[in-house]
Amino acid sequence: MPLTKDVIKFGTFVVTSQVFHLTRLSFAIVNLKPLLPGHVLVSPRRTVPRFNDLSTAEVQDLFLTVQRVSRMVERVFDASSLNIAIQDGVDAGQSVPHVHAHIIPRQKEDLEAQGGTDAIYGMMESEDADLNKQLREKERAAQSHVPQDENKGHFPAVDNDSRKPRSDEEMQKEAEWLTKEMAKDAASHGEDGRTLS
Amino acid sequence: MPLTKDVIKFGTFVVTSQVFHLTRLSFAIVNLKPLLPGHVLVSPRRTVPRFNDLSTAEVQDLFLTVQRVSRMVERVFDASSLNIAIQDGVDAGQSVPHVHAHIIPRQKEDLEAQGGTDAIYGMMESEDADLNKQLREKERAAQSHVPQDENKGHFPAVDNDSRKPRSDEEMQKEAEWLTKEMAKDAASHGEDGRTLS
Repeated sequence: MPLTKDVIKFGTFVVTSQVFHLTRLSFAIVNLKPLLPGHVLVSPRRTVPRFNDLSTAEVQDLFLTVQRVSRMVERVFDASSLNIAIQDGVDAGQSVPHVHAHIIPRQKEDLEAQGGTDAIYGMMESEDADLNKQLREKERAAQSHVPQDENKGHFPAVDNDSRKPRSDEEMQKEAEWLTKEMAKDAASHGEDGRTLS
Repeated sequence: MPLTKDVIKFGTFVVTSQVFHLTRLSFAIVNLKPLLPGHVLVSPRRTVPRFNDLSTAEVQDLFLTVQRVSRMVERVFDASSLNIAIQDGVDAGQSVPHVHAHIIPRQKEDLEAQGGTDAIYGMMESEDADLNKQLREKERAAQSHVPQDENKGHFPAVDNDSRKPRSDEEMQKEAEWLTKEMAKDAASHGEDGRTLS
């Protein structure tokens, strides 16, 4: 079951089944095609394209959410570092016109085979360029009224990328798992996010 | 004259002359070797390596500062977009163990000759790897008690990078200019950062 009965939109796309954390002003979603395990996105609930469009309350809520979510994914995905990045505007590589922070858990030498630590950025850029296309295709598949189970795994293979887009069911399972992991952190941290020891 | 009589440290490095904006918990500095015009850094005043080390108040102050600074550099450097990125930990490419957000103003097709929009990331990565080395060299030059004027432009050419490290004087001039530009924005915006119209 999705975390919320609200319809959560990322740009014009409905991403409700991908949501694993919700605050009053922000949401966090798992990815259709994570670049590395635990690659997630955090966005304001209000659909605005630019960071400068956010109110003070939205900025504060967004980055406290980024902090809580990054702490969780670093723990759960056994990482040692994180890339946190916002492509703020088209000329910085943004494809979905809705503010979003990428959070990507990193491990030592996790991208040695791909060219080293900084390989993540080229990957992120192409993934972000893809994101709009991927979500459009997913939406089109859903609108064809194919039952969810039959639809699963039937996303068209339109690019030569080896990462497969995941089914709604698969993303929802991960979202439910991460919701539980967020709750574990909340239990061991104070309301201000600092560890209670 | 520097903005403050406080000694501002970025990691173990004294960067007081590079500071153009100070809040109770954060500071913003111009770069020794900006990747693109207006490439600046925003950090918490407390020297801690990881984003998760920040208190709620520090996170809030840091990103409201990032928002105010990005608005200013986008305007002043005539940009249309921004890259905002944090390398949070060694395995994500962090070289100076002090939380810092890169803010890089972007213009349409500004890096076409370098390979396109995403070329910034490889540049950022190598620059960040350099940052520690650059600041160490700068510090060493300062400790040799060469007068600032003679010292200017005498940084050893240790890498094959065409970007030249800038002198303290040059950075301080830019910092003073940006301080004034921040003040202009403050005059036209409310305390909560939203435009008063």
